[in-house]
Amino acid sequence: MKPTVDVAALVERIEALGSVGAIDGGGVCRVALTDADADGRAVVIDWMRAAGLTVTVDTIGNVFGTRAGTRDLPPVMIGSHIDTVATGGKYDGNLGVLAGLAVVDALDAAQVETAAPITVAFFTNEEGVRFAPDMMGSLVFAGGMTIEAALDVRAADGTRLGDELQRIGAQGSTPCGFPVGAYIELHIEQGPVLEAEGIEIGVVTGVQGISWTEFTFRGTANHAGTTPMALRKDAAYVAAAVTVCARELTDSIPGQLATVGVTDLEPNLTNVVARTARITVDLRNDDATRLAQAIERLDAEVARITSTQGVSVDATRLVHFDPVVFDSEIVNQVERIAHDHGRSTKRMVSGAGHDAQMMARVCPAGMIFIPSRDGLSHNPREYSSPEQVAQGAAVLLDVVLELASAD
Amino acid sequence: MKPTVDVAALVERIEALGSVGAIDGGGVCRVALTDADADGRAVVIDWMRAAGLTVTVDTIGNVFGTRAGTRDLPPVMIGSHIDTVATGGKYDGNLGVLAGLAVVDALDAAQVETAAPITVAFFTNEEGVRFAPDMMGSLVFAGGMTIEAALDVRAADGTRLGDELQRIGAQGSTPCGFPVGAYIELHIEQGPVLEAEGIEIGVVTGVQGISWTEFTFRGTANHAGTTPMALRKDAAYVAAAVTVCARELTDSIPGQLATVGVTDLEPNLTNVVARTARITVDLRNDDATRLAQAIERLDAEVARITSTQGVSVDATRLVHFDPVVFDSEIVNQVERIAHDHGRSTKRMVSGAGHDAQMMARVCPAGMIFIPSRDGLSHNPREYSSPEQVAQGAAVLLDVVLELASAD
Repeated sequence: MKPTVDVAALVERIEALGSVGAIDGGGVCRVALTDADADGRAVVIDWMRAAGLTVTVDTIGNVFGTRAGTRDLPPVMIGSHIDTVATGGKYDGNLGVLAGLAVVDALDAAQVETAAPITVAFFTNEEGVRFAPDMMGSLVFAGGMTIEAALDVRAADGTRLGDELQRIGAQGSTPCGFPVGAYIELHIEQGPVLEAEGIEIGVVTGVQGISWTEFTFRGTANHAGTTPMALRKDAAYVAAAVTVCARELTDSIPGQLATVGVTDLEPNLTNVVARTARITVDLRNDDATRLAQAIERLDAEVARITSTQGVSVDATRLVHFDPVVFDSEIVNQVERIAHDHGRSTKRMVSGAGHDAQMMARVCPAGMIFIPSRDGLSHNPREYSSPEQVAQGAAVLLDVVLELASAD
Repeated sequence: MKPTVDVAALVERIEALGSVGAIDGGGVCRVALTDADADGRAVVIDWMRAAGLTVTVDTIGNVFGTRAGTRDLPPVMIGSHIDTVATGGKYDGNLGVLAGLAVVDALDAAQVETAAPITVAFFTNEEGVRFAPDMMGSLVFAGGMTIEAALDVRAADGTRLGDELQRIGAQGSTPCGFPVGAYIELHIEQGPVLEAEGIEIGVVTGVQGISWTEFTFRGTANHAGTTPMALRKDAAYVAAAVTVCARELTDSIPGQLATVGVTDLEPNLTNVVARTARITVDLRNDDATRLAQAIERLDAEVARITSTQGVSVDATRLVHFDPVVFDSEIVNQVERIAHDHGRSTKRMVSGAGHDAQMMARVCPAGMIFIPSRDGLSHNPREYSSPEQVAQGAAVLLDVVLELASAD
């Protein structure tokens, strides 16, 4: 009997988990290491145990439910996360974990054994809302951050991560990190491309590199009516000119994204030339050389504009991740299986960060995307249809079957 | 005996009045119609009475102290205001009123009579901090706003101006407005030009026209990593592009000033394309045609940019004052007398609003500027030296003597 995913049961679980920490408008608030996160963890661990999985929890709170294989091999891991942003949706993260459970259920129902064990995982604090950095659980698992450093991270209000992890009872005793044969993650696209192009399955080839820089420009506050233009040191104008430069980079550097999402002026009054302006610039590219080029050109423009305007600048690099390239065999496999299922596909790079990029440091890894309605994510209106969920889960099932086979 | 201003006494009064509502750093907080404003009013009215002036208060709280003339002529008025911004200085407004008292004292000491009466005036709520518009007392005096409308103005917290005026005992019974022969106001420049050019006396030829517009741009919030540039409706980018356009107007329109002092983004997050951006644009020019041209060109740029970017815009005109031209005879007189005193002069247009521009609607009016250290105003560090105060007051005295003479 060929195993098939029970889509109705999967969608029911997406709704059931979405009701834990539910907020208005169909959204979810289960920020990592809050009481709501604890409630969500308990629900999913119950489902793991009900499916007969062996559950272990490591010292950063990552949870693993394992179905035994017939051979002594490292497991094939199906993972993602169940924490959300403060005004999140039901699909981001949750889909990948619950689809993993659905794969296990399908194998059980069809009485299919695999050579390698199959582990369904959810990682702690992927969103990084209260505690930075994001993707923390998978980062620690992959050895990119020590467990001691992670436990000592503090929220803006001084709360220590390790204390919260213990308070909600989410800390396990298993050391972080163990051999994994392969890692695969099903996720919503969180962008508009698949829907806009009418594509069913996104074959994810990697994750964009990300550079976040905060610039604080310091000029001089002056009266807007009495200060000649030539005598101004206008921090707001400099911030605007840099914002326009960031956009212009995207016209000349292939694949470049640039976003200025934060602008804060002081004193922020109609008739006062701004003394200080703080902006953040988010640069992304799937090519490391081009991302470096964008950073360098923006820095040069900032130097030119601030010097011309007599305004000083402090630059702080908040985040830098180099682009990640997923395992080409898994990428090819996802594409081939999707075609076998009659699905339309598009090779694409993830614009958002995912646990898969951390796992790619320690094992062959890949991702499968399904469309997001209106490209919305981190939003209560986040939605993918049961049909889209079914198509993604079916591809996931067959990819896992191949990865977990003996050859 | 030729009358001369007692500079030591004048500076002493500037300091004494500055101690009423004093704040840290040498500044003053006497926002109009607060208890501190009442305290300041009492001090100046006492000084008026001590100088033998006949004090009247009108129904908006403007205060007039009059020294009789020898003929039945409308008075020559020396005026300004004693209210301050929340973190103001000792000189803005106060200098003009206290220099008026110093002129009266000088005439008394020299036993000089004038043909026209001389009235020292301070107008209510010039700064417009709690109650809009600014320059309210002189606007009502000049017939530009009815007393009923002014008394019914409400602060952001709902407080009615008329109630505050009564509460602090500042409302008089004299109807607003009476014939004035001429109006002259001594004021600090509130800008850096005189100091930067080493000029002693600013001969003010008029007041710039002012246009304030609030633009609210509405786009779509999107993920900074997953939304291709071509699919974005980025309100923050539009705000920045309009800010840069506003600055570019000043390169091509003579005498044009442009300031974007306010920028507020939503949601104002590093990795989210902004849904809305609100900016204010402050445009000023001393030429009405050029100001209109700047407004028109900015509106055209806003229409072009928003249309290209798929972002909608709401525009609200917050303020519009046409440029004011002062009486050419008084302007020439100020310049001639300053030269007679051996002072260097510069003809200049005021970038800030002043009660003189309201009085210019009903009588010949003019202004005299002295330098502001570092161009600072609306700031506790506001300062002009005793020598600069003396030079300005000496010119004021001789201008008043000429204006109040019989011919």
